[in-house]
Amino acid sequence: MSDENYPTFKDVVSAAEAIDGLAVKTPLLKCEHLSDMLDAEIYVKAECLQRVGAFKFRGAYNRLSRLNAEERNRGVVAYSSGNHAQGVAASAQILGINATIVMPEDSPKMKLENTRNYGAEVITYDRENESREEIANQISEERGCIVVPSFADFYIIAGQGTAALEAIEQANEKDVDFDLFMTPVGGGGLIAGCSLAVKELSPDTEIYGVEPEGFNDVQRSIETGTLVKNERASGSLCDAILTPVTEQMNYDIMAENLSGVLTVTDDQALSAMKYAWEKMKLVVEPGAAVALAAVLNGKIDVKGKNVCLVLSGGNVDEETFIRALES
Amino acid sequence: MSDENYPTFKDVVSAAEAIDGLAVKTPLLKCEHLSDMLDAEIYVKAECLQRVGAFKFRGAYNRLSRLNAEERNRGVVAYSSGNHAQGVAASAQILGINATIVMPEDSPKMKLENTRNYGAEVITYDRENESREEIANQISEERGCIVVPSFADFYIIAGQGTAALEAIEQANEKDVDFDLFMTPVGGGGLIAGCSLAVKELSPDTEIYGVEPEGFNDVQRSIETGTLVKNERASGSLCDAILTPVTEQMNYDIMAENLSGVLTVTDDQALSAMKYAWEKMKLVVEPGAAVALAAVLNGKIDVKGKNVCLVLSGGNVDEETFIRALES
Repeated sequence: MSDENYPTFKDVVSAAEAIDGLAVKTPLLKCEHLSDMLDAEIYVKAECLQRVGAFKFRGAYNRLSRLNAEERNRGVVAYSSGNHAQGVAASAQILGINATIVMPEDSPKMKLENTRNYGAEVITYDRENESREEIANQISEERGCIVVPSFADFYIIAGQGTAALEAIEQANEKDVDFDLFMTPVGGGGLIAGCSLAVKELSPDTEIYGVEPEGFNDVQRSIETGTLVKNERASGSLCDAILTPVTEQMNYDIMAENLSGVLTVTDDQALSAMKYAWEKMKLVVEPGAAVALAAVLNGKIDVKGKNVCLVLSGGNVDEETFIRALES
Repeated sequence: MSDENYPTFKDVVSAAEAIDGLAVKTPLLKCEHLSDMLDAEIYVKAECLQRVGAFKFRGAYNRLSRLNAEERNRGVVAYSSGNHAQGVAASAQILGINATIVMPEDSPKMKLENTRNYGAEVITYDRENESREEIANQISEERGCIVVPSFADFYIIAGQGTAALEAIEQANEKDVDFDLFMTPVGGGGLIAGCSLAVKELSPDTEIYGVEPEGFNDVQRSIETGTLVKNERASGSLCDAILTPVTEQMNYDIMAENLSGVLTVTDDQALSAMKYAWEKMKLVVEPGAAVALAAVLNGKIDVKGKNVCLVLSGGNVDEETFIRALES
C-alpha cells in the first residue's frame, strides 16, 4: 500500500485547508440515550448537517479546487446516485465551473432536484441496463470535460478523510479517545479517507465499515483478497451506498486499515433512521444510517467503548422518511 | 426593570458555568438555502440537539443545581407541557433529586414517555378544566417538595439565556454580528434570558419573539402595557408555547429588551418544520419552528441582515411530524 499515488494523512490535512470556511465543521454529538442503553460512550459525527446534506461536499470541493484554470474552463462530469452529484454541483457552482451529472433515473427526487438547483445539467440513466461510467466517459470525450470520480480518486479520498480529522479533534477537546470508528461504506471513499486520519492520529482505534445486506462488495472483496462485484445493481433503500464494486485504490487502503465490515438489512436501516429522528433530532437517509443500525442491532460489541458513528447524509424523500417513522 | 431580584448578564454567565459539561453546546448552523433565498445570512441555533431535545435543560439544571442539600432531599415538583418537564426530570436524575411533574393529559406521547424515562413521577391533568399551578402547589404542600417554575424564575431565565450567550460567541468565531435575534415565545423564559445576553454583548441587535396566532399573550401584553391572558388554553399544534400568560418578571425584561413580537399560524409552523427537515436535516417541533416560520413567511424584513433563529426543540410525535411532511 506504499503506492506514491495514494493519498496519505498529509493530504487529508491539505484537504482540510482547502475546504476551510466552505464545508461545515459538523458537530460531534454524544447520544446520551444510546450511551446509557449500551453502557458505552456513543458519539455521532453529524454529516447530514454538512453543506449539500452529506459528507460528499468535502471530497468534491477538494477535488475541484485542485483543477487549474484551463481544466476549470473545460467543465466537469460526474456520475453519482445523488450525494456526490450534489457535492460536485455545489462545488462547481462555488468555483464557477460547468458541471454535468449522470444520475440513475430512480434517484430520490430530492437528490435530482437539488443537483439541478445547484446549477448542474443532470442526465439520467437506467441503473440496471446502462453503464454510468460509459455515459460519463462519452460526455467527457464529446465535451472535453473532466471526469470527477465518486470515490476512486486521490483528492476525493483525502477530502472525505477530513470528516475523521475533525471528529478526532472534536473528541480530543472532550478528552475522548475513540476505541471504534464506524462509517457506512459504498465505494469506500469516506472510510478510506477517514482511515488515513484515524490511523495517524489514533492508531489503536479500530475501524469498521457497514454495508447493506446483499450489497457487501467491500466485505467480500476483503474476505477474498480480490475485487468482488455486487450481484445486483439495485434493490435496497440504501441508494447512497449501492456502488457496484469498490476500486483498487480504495480497496488497498481499506484492506490495510479496516478491522472489519458488517452488514445490516433495509429494515434495520429504517429503524435506525427513526431512532436518529426520535433520540438525536437528526434527519438521516437510509444509506447513512447503517453504522448506527449495526450498533443498534448488536452487530458489534461496544460495551465500555468510546464509539464514533458517522451519520453520512440526510437526503431522503418524504415517502421513505414516513416509511421509517411508521416502522 | 432595575429590580435586584431580576437576573442580569452576570447571572447568565454564572449559569453557563453551572451547566458546562452537562448541557450540549449546540451548533450554530448557517442555512445556505435560506440565506440565498432571502439575500441574508440566516443562522439557526439548533437547540433541538440539546440534552432532552429542547433548550429547557439549560434553565432547569441551573435552577436545580442551586438547591442546597436540605432542599434536594425534599424533592421538586414542576408543571409543564413537556419540555420543561423533561429538563427538570433529567436534571433531577443527574443530581439525585426526586421529581414529580404535572403535565397536560394531551401532551405529546413522546414528552410523557421521556419524562417518565428520566425517572420522574408524572401526574396528568385536564388542560381546559384544571389548574396546573394549583395541582403543583397542592403536591408541594403535601410532600414538602419545592416548586420549579417553568419560566418566571431568576435561575431559569438566566439558564435559558446561555443559548444566546453561546450563539453570540459562536457567531464571533465566524466574525458575524447578528442584526436580528429571534426565538419562539411561550412564557418568555427563553427570550427574556437570551435578551440579557444579547443586549450586553451586542446592544444593537434587535430581538423579536414569535407566538402562535390566537396565543399571543406576550404580544398583547407588551402592546397594552399590562399582562393579558390568552382566551384559550389549547387549540394549537404548538403545544410547547401555549402558556396561558407570561408573568411580571418575564414581562418586565421583555418589555425593556424586545423590538417586537410576531405571530404565525399552525400551518406556517408545519411548513417550517418541513423546511427544517428538508434543508437543514433537523427535527423541529411545531412550537420550536415559529421563528423560522416567521422568516419564511415574510413577517419581518431580513434582507441584507445577519439573523439568528433559535430552533428551540424537537420533541414531536410521529403523527404530527408526518402531517408536517405531507403539508
